[in-house]
Amino acid sequence: MSTSFTMIGGEGPDSYQKHSKWQGGLLEAAKEKINEAISTKLDIDFTSNLVNIADFGCSTGPNTFKAVQTIIDAVEHKYQKENNYEEIEFQVFFNDSSNNDFNTLFKTLPQARRYYTAGVPGSFFGSVLPKRTLHVGVSSYSLHFVSTVPKEIKDHDSQVWNKDIHCTGLSKEVVKAYLDQYKIDMGSYLNARAQELLSGGLLLLLGSCLPNGVQMSETLNGMMLDCIGSALNDMAEKGLIDQEKLDTFKLPIYVAYASELKQTIEDNGFYTIERFDIISNENEEIPIDEEFLTVSFKVTVGGIVASQFGQDAMEKTFEVVKIKTQEILPQLANAKPEMQYLIVLRRI
Amino acid sequence: MSTSFTMIGGEGPDSYQKHSKWQGGLLEAAKEKINEAISTKLDIDFTSNLVNIADFGCSTGPNTFKAVQTIIDAVEHKYQKENNYEEIEFQVFFNDSSNNDFNTLFKTLPQARRYYTAGVPGSFFGSVLPKRTLHVGVSSYSLHFVSTVPKEIKDHDSQVWNKDIHCTGLSKEVVKAYLDQYKIDMGSYLNARAQELLSGGLLLLLGSCLPNGVQMSETLNGMMLDCIGSALNDMAEKGLIDQEKLDTFKLPIYVAYASELKQTIEDNGFYTIERFDIISNENEEIPIDEEFLTVSFKVTVGGIVASQFGQDAMEKTFEVVKIKTQEILPQLANAKPEMQYLIVLRRI
Repeated sequence: MSTSFTMIGGEGPDSYQKHSKWQGGLLEAAKEKINEAISTKLDIDFTSNLVNIADFGCSTGPNTFKAVQTIIDAVEHKYQKENNYEEIEFQVFFNDSSNNDFNTLFKTLPQARRYYTAGVPGSFFGSVLPKRTLHVGVSSYSLHFVSTVPKEIKDHDSQVWNKDIHCTGLSKEVVKAYLDQYKIDMGSYLNARAQELLSGGLLLLLGSCLPNGVQMSETLNGMMLDCIGSALNDMAEKGLIDQEKLDTFKLPIYVAYASELKQTIEDNGFYTIERFDIISNENEEIPIDEEFLTVSFKVTVGGIVASQFGQDAMEKTFEVVKIKTQEILPQLANAKPEMQYLIVLRRI
Repeated sequence: MSTSFTMIGGEGPDSYQKHSKWQGGLLEAAKEKINEAISTKLDIDFTSNLVNIADFGCSTGPNTFKAVQTIIDAVEHKYQKENNYEEIEFQVFFNDSSNNDFNTLFKTLPQARRYYTAGVPGSFFGSVLPKRTLHVGVSSYSLHFVSTVPKEIKDHDSQVWNKDIHCTGLSKEVVKAYLDQYKIDMGSYLNARAQELLSGGLLLLLGSCLPNGVQMSETLNGMMLDCIGSALNDMAEKGLIDQEKLDTFKLPIYVAYASELKQTIEDNGFYTIERFDIISNENEEIPIDEEFLTVSFKVTVGGIVASQFGQDAMEKTFEVVKIKTQEILPQLANAKPEMQYLIVLRRI
């Protein structure tokens, strides 16, 4: 289950930074597998001693720093062993939307880093780096968003209108509309990375997906999103937010089934799938705690809520979310687990 | 005369963006010469169709966008003519201190740009890009700062203590201490760029320098800095800022004579000097107007003042600066002009 769809930056009390331990634990669990993948699958034709690494959907840290350091350590280990290179240089490109808080990212960079740093603003559904310049790319819990909510889902008069904010009682048609958009977006993402990667370069994907037979609404993520929906309904009833604005408010989130994700990659055709692993986060359990969960979702979804209803309404909404979360703690504790994936793709 | 030592970002009324027309005019005046330099002096051994460009000390725009576009246009013109390249790709690295407002820079990027964008945080007195990857670098009005105020100048008990905030009545010893630091810093800057540039690559420097025989205190820049010093003295007398803090407050600014700058470059030895031109800003005169001047200097020096005395004290200081500026408008109108330089260096 991901708690990092999009991030609110800054260093305040709601900061993503303080709520990223859980995700950091998942990365730790994937570390050995990433090491092995780079050791056995990365096949770079060095023209210089420069290795380019990029994190697509980096947010503000600190997990992006851990992810790139894991990759750097693995590449150094591999090439220093194989080729006795005296000096490999690394350049790391931190990519996220131009609305991301790059100022915070840059101010919190590890002091002792041994790589050149660049922030790259722009949507990762398009190319953000020059052609054939990238050796290793990674996306960690940034692929649960679609680029846009399908229009018909927001349209009250459409047959495919989703009456809920997100997932409870999703009709098949709504799910299909989301899935169609997800496939388009993942296709764009994979095409863009295929342009940027050198042949033999690797793309590492970490994130969460749904086990077969499990509905989004049965997961902790889904329950929390519905809880936010319910809070927004309360806000509208009390006249604190505009009902018409709420009617057209849906979240651009789609958590795929593993099979859907795999099919999308195979259809793309630019990569060989070197690993498609389900990893678990044994180091750390998700705290079922209204404080933790509310802040986590405020960090991840708060920005979208604020952009539709304003900052004040968002703050009030999450006060309601906290109360509602407390009420459903027993259900949350029994939510069906999502699966965490580590996918290693190799550019053909 | 430069009005852009360091910049306050953001999009508020004090923003640098609204006060950069004058500098934009200078760039316009240099455009033809930059075109010609790139056309005749740039000598890239293409290993790919990628051209890397960097602006060192980019601030938040929009002049950095104009500068890089001028370079891109010139490179495209040269290589499409010479080699019939179908598709040259450009990657632009915008470098400035990690305290720079990169969020504003990224949000105000030209929509129709045809280059990949990267922000590079870090001091340009050290390397910020990988070795031998840069084709053209530029620094536009960002080389008037020294990395640190020489210690002895701030020390009340030192023989080289500067009793003024900046330049009126500067002793020879104080000037020498600044110059020594300037030479060290320019040397570091040139060494760092020499690491990053490919052989045959160009480094373009725009900025202002002092004509022979002219003292800093006789220029508009110098008079305004002394005006800020005088305002700070008033603030201390009224008890609005701490006198002890003021005693150790000096500005890390050194505007070199053309001969000093040239000597520093020659001593460095990594470059041939292809051009060392004094250009004038014929398109636009500096408005001698207390509003314009106060805001310009608030943008450039306000950040340093605020970091020593706090934001409130800085705001109040510049209210005083505005009144004092109005009082000396006749002197300002008769200030001795600085010289604007365009230097083209070619990496050996």
